[in-house]
Amino acid sequence: MKEQPLILVTNDDGITAPGIRTLTQEMKAFGRVIVVAPDKPQSAMGHAITIHDYLRLNKVEMMDGVEAYSCSGTPVDCVKLAVYHIIKGRPALLVSGVNHGSNISINVLYSGTMSAAVEGAMEGIPSIGFSLMDHDVHADFAHVQPIIRSVVSNVLEKGLAKGTCLNVNVPRASEVPLKGLRVCRQAWGFWEDDFEARKDPMGKDYFWLRGRFKDLDHGEDTDVWAVNNGYASVVPVQFDMTAHHAIAELNTWDHAR
Amino acid sequence: MKEQPLILVTNDDGITAPGIRTLTQEMKAFGRVIVVAPDKPQSAMGHAITIHDYLRLNKVEMMDGVEAYSCSGTPVDCVKLAVYHIIKGRPALLVSGVNHGSNISINVLYSGTMSAAVEGAMEGIPSIGFSLMDHDVHADFAHVQPIIRSVVSNVLEKGLAKGTCLNVNVPRASEVPLKGLRVCRQAWGFWEDDFEARKDPMGKDYFWLRGRFKDLDHGEDTDVWAVNNGYASVVPVQFDMTAHHAIAELNTWDHAR
Repeated sequence: MKEQPLILVTNDDGITAPGIRTLTQEMKAFGRVIVVAPDKPQSAMGHAITIHDYLRLNKVEMMDGVEAYSCSGTPVDCVKLAVYHIIKGRPALLVSGVNHGSNISINVLYSGTMSAAVEGAMEGIPSIGFSLMDHDVHADFAHVQPIIRSVVSNVLEKGLAKGTCLNVNVPRASEVPLKGLRVCRQAWGFWEDDFEARKDPMGKDYFWLRGRFKDLDHGEDTDVWAVNNGYASVVPVQFDMTAHHAIAELNTWDHAR
Repeated sequence: MKEQPLILVTNDDGITAPGIRTLTQEMKAFGRVIVVAPDKPQSAMGHAITIHDYLRLNKVEMMDGVEAYSCSGTPVDCVKLAVYHIIKGRPALLVSGVNHGSNISINVLYSGTMSAAVEGAMEGIPSIGFSLMDHDVHADFAHVQPIIRSVVSNVLEKGLAKGTCLNVNVPRASEVPLKGLRVCRQAWGFWEDDFEARKDPMGKDYFWLRGRFKDLDHGEDTDVWAVNNGYASVVPVQFDMTAHHAIAELNTWDHAR
């Protein structure tokens, strides 16, 4: 009998989120599943790791046939604990999500969901982050399931280019039927933020971050374009952040010697 | 009289760290300086932002002629507060650091110092992260000062390619005289982690992350090679994480339609 592939599941919304339950349920058809996920919401934690504090790890009941752990740290901490402490090796696949909310464009950098997938790629594990463009805790994930199955089948069969993972974003259920799935690049955009100032009962200021995402990219090959036009987007993501195109210009500068 | 450029200084070691004092002192020769930095160490916070909690911001005394604020959030929160709440506009330059510890290779993704610079690049601000390969709180920064002056002069004069910032790493003082400054790419490597398990007084397990960086890159054009061979390294960094080279292959896959 062929050994079942070992699949690591994580997320950033925490182990009780409906999104990770959907993803875990789907993974049971593909292999043996281990879940290591934060014990509380860790959205927008980016690639943060915990170095100034200790970590707690608890075995929890989550779903029949699934080995599950909740962790006090970030999504990237969860991946590190899974690989180096629980599994003591590399799973055949890492899936992260399904995130409640989109991770298109530059949100790949803020996203704990995607940072877990990037950490997987750093470890040489084929890794995929899934996000649904719906923040509702009761979001409908039914139309995401066939996309998860399709992408996971392809990745398990064909692998991914070295040092890359996938960022998959799916429009919300009200946008179905989807037109399909498009391979995209990350759109150019930024967050125009503002801060809502409030006063605490002592009269001291505090601030809440708010922002509006500004899409500056007119291309029709971007993830933003895809999800706004009825497609799920798939962006291959790498962790080489070198701006290779800028190296030659910098080599014309006079430098301190 | 020509108006002085406005320079934003931040870091991830916190506003009291010697590294940010060195950097702030150097910046006073280049323009009007505003410091917005974390009120406590925020190392390895990556591109985390604070969305599930409020932020505090306090005006503090730091250095003559410098407007300074400490912030309860992450380095990226500091940049956002500076741009959208304090300055209400874009400074001419953002500098982050000098970090106590290196940020070479993939550490650019974990680093709060570099994430602040990347956030600056997202905002269209010429941005530079400086790191010294010495974790000692009493590290000697004297040999870093001419490198800061050289890189900042070049950036203020020539600008940076759109969507890029610089990651500057300097060997520790015991390695001087430096051979100079080399423009590099990010080295290929990963962290081989382990977790030290301890028991609390109640007998319950907790874990501390430890790791050894593994350099897998034989190139002599990398930041790891440069700092190990007596040079300061300068890597141009971008926030487009798309693995453009992987797109064509993904377009050969059969996808759910």
